[in-house]
Amino acid sequence: MNVVIISIGDELLNGQTVNTNAAFLAEKLYEKAFDVKKIISVGDNESEIIQAFEEAERIADIILVTGGLGPTHDDITKNCAIKYFDDKLVLNETVLEDIRILFKKRGREMAPINELQAWVPSKAKIFRNLLGTAPAFALEKNEKLFAFMPGVPFEMVDLFQNQILNFLIEKKGLTNFYRYTLSLLTTGIPESTLFQKLGDIKELTKGSKLAFLPSQYGVKLRIQVDAKNEDEAKNLLQEIEQKIRSKVGRYIYGKNNETLEEVVARLLIDRRLKLSVAESCSGGLVSHRLTNIPGSSSFFNRGIIAYSNAAKVEILKVEEDLIHKYGAVSYQVAEAMASGVKAISGSDIGLGITGIMGPTGDSPNKPIGLTYIGICDKNGCVVKDFKFGDNRLRNKERASQAALEMLRRNILGINYDE
Amino acid sequence: MNVVIISIGDELLNGQTVNTNAAFLAEKLYEKAFDVKKIISVGDNESEIIQAFEEAERIADIILVTGGLGPTHDDITKNCAIKYFDDKLVLNETVLEDIRILFKKRGREMAPINELQAWVPSKAKIFRNLLGTAPAFALEKNEKLFAFMPGVPFEMVDLFQNQILNFLIEKKGLTNFYRYTLSLLTTGIPESTLFQKLGDIKELTKGSKLAFLPSQYGVKLRIQVDAKNEDEAKNLLQEIEQKIRSKVGRYIYGKNNETLEEVVARLLIDRRLKLSVAESCSGGLVSHRLTNIPGSSSFFNRGIIAYSNAAKVEILKVEEDLIHKYGAVSYQVAEAMASGVKAISGSDIGLGITGIMGPTGDSPNKPIGLTYIGICDKNGCVVKDFKFGDNRLRNKERASQAALEMLRRNILGINYDE
Repeated sequence: MNVVIISIGDELLNGQTVNTNAAFLAEKLYEKAFDVKKIISVGDNESEIIQAFEEAERIADIILVTGGLGPTHDDITKNCAIKYFDDKLVLNETVLEDIRILFKKRGREMAPINELQAWVPSKAKIFRNLLGTAPAFALEKNEKLFAFMPGVPFEMVDLFQNQILNFLIEKKGLTNFYRYTLSLLTTGIPESTLFQKLGDIKELTKGSKLAFLPSQYGVKLRIQVDAKNEDEAKNLLQEIEQKIRSKVGRYIYGKNNETLEEVVARLLIDRRLKLSVAESCSGGLVSHRLTNIPGSSSFFNRGIIAYSNAAKVEILKVEEDLIHKYGAVSYQVAEAMASGVKAISGSDIGLGITGIMGPTGDSPNKPIGLTYIGICDKNGCVVKDFKFGDNRLRNKERASQAALEMLRRNILGINYDE
Repeated sequence: MNVVIISIGDELLNGQTVNTNAAFLAEKLYEKAFDVKKIISVGDNESEIIQAFEEAERIADIILVTGGLGPTHDDITKNCAIKYFDDKLVLNETVLEDIRILFKKRGREMAPINELQAWVPSKAKIFRNLLGTAPAFALEKNEKLFAFMPGVPFEMVDLFQNQILNFLIEKKGLTNFYRYTLSLLTTGIPESTLFQKLGDIKELTKGSKLAFLPSQYGVKLRIQVDAKNEDEAKNLLQEIEQKIRSKVGRYIYGKNNETLEEVVARLLIDRRLKLSVAESCSGGLVSHRLTNIPGSSSFFNRGIIAYSNAAKVEILKVEEDLIHKYGAVSYQVAEAMASGVKAISGSDIGLGITGIMGPTGDSPNKPIGLTYIGICDKNGCVVKDFKFGDNRLRNKERASQAALEMLRRNILGINYDE
């Protein structure tokens, strides 16, 4: 099954928006072994949009279109669609009700212009959008299937994952081989070290694909297996996974789209442990990530962002002498922050983070990027030092990832340094 | 001058790589008033690449090609180029020397395969790449100019900014008009209301372009002006900006790439105000955003993430009775959190945020998304209620944006409700 993705919007052609929608769709289609032949971006211009439709129809069986479905003057995709499919717009009462409910929920007046969003092509199959005002819709012509989705990324993602993808599979069928992919998520180990520890990749994967995808959160190992039947694919994938785990298992915190905060949250909930967090340099990012998890109130007691020394002393009961003697960014203060927040909250685990995120604040023996992270639990305290880079935002991200990984290893009893 | 961008690589069609190269090129070209008509991504496949060349040549005067110039088996762009231009490869000694120096610098052995990188089309103008092994090159055919660049983003960026862009301007000239763009950033007002308040867009912009770009952080108004000379462009843009500000100025927090946290940080620093933050539902996100700003320690005293009621009572001194009587998510508790954190820190401003982010925790009269935000300063306290949606992460983002916007308006004395 060949696919063309058409992304519509002037913002793509003037560089205001990076086309993440096309990458998302391409990845999801690839996982199901649909073959994306081309990605085309055009502006909000009728003749260029229609030409892209014609071109895509020549190449592909399935054409996915995103963008240009909003209510304002520059959104013309819907009108291009009815022109191309020789159709007309009709008012869809279900969609209109969805839009009314959306505005009501948000406690906002519904401007009349939003009613336009409930007018849809008469021949189209409609996919209700519960996150925004533009429904998705599909139209068919000469056995070619066009699906139109709004360009707002979270609306598009929701519509595609929950409705459109299944619709495509239903209408066009899957290919006759099975493709399985698995990502193993590592952190706290550089790409080159991981590569060396894994040894001969060809021997390891026996013809399957293994990709190394590094980011500031760690290195993702992406395995892709194609096989004639489902069992064969699954077994092959399992075999490769086991081999990788036997070599670098301690660095693997999760799979696929899991986040480290999800993994840590699950561990805390399973073991009924309460956590409190004292952050200085990470500025609330660790607390933010942990409270992104639904139900986090069951394990997250409190977070103290003790940016000023006064806050460290008054709230966390860090001794002033300690700060004067060793500095706010020190092994000793990280430990005192962790034990302090544990004590004042009565939590099972206390986490303390202090560091120099930049661009200023460094000194000859304390460079930008230097960070101390401490954890205290019933067995005592552990503190570890890290040297991150010189970019403030990436340093915050790295510090939060290192702190969450220390929590994971601490709970699981994995020694950090071995 | 019409431009088509062709991005080559299987990784674009399977979603492993987001096409940031095209967005970068599009933005730089747009600033110089080159008109990008289309962006095409194709895989590492000869017939598809050649077809893309043909298509681009029909549409554009300038064709920019990135990707597929590496030394491995799947890099075929250079061979497609010599086929398309009926040319042959010749060894370029300067390039070969550049590659040798690059390997020497990195202290690495130069594998023989890298010599292939020094073979370039005989008719091409060569652009030396000092950051990688693949030089860029340009070829001409029927007055159409093709420029080929490596796909590694930092190499491409360097080559384009320092060599290719000037070459394009030299060869094809600048357009005879000036282009200015300006983005005005609004928040706290829906796209449709903004649209209505602005009235007749054509009347407002007199032929210039105005785009509405919504996200969970607000709506960006992007104005684009083209004029015969620089003064005319500047004056026109200024005129449109003033008209927009006269209608919706209170909702505009910044310009272009500014973030709301940057704007708030600047206001706090300018007025030498100290801030402390008490977050419940937003879980540290407000503190995280504010501490992303370099120098935030000069205004950010502390953040308390009082997730548990115990933390609200013990640290923020919220009266237990208040929580029992009105609930933790209430007007009263938001105010008590704001005044509490102001009092314990001695800061000039206290911010308090409490809400129900979902997916659970709601009750008949307190739906998911309900959030109260309070601000206390020397003039007293203000509390506002918000109804966000039902997605936890987006609710946190919206709550943080609303809280920062309340801070901005509070500091500037803009009444929120008028």
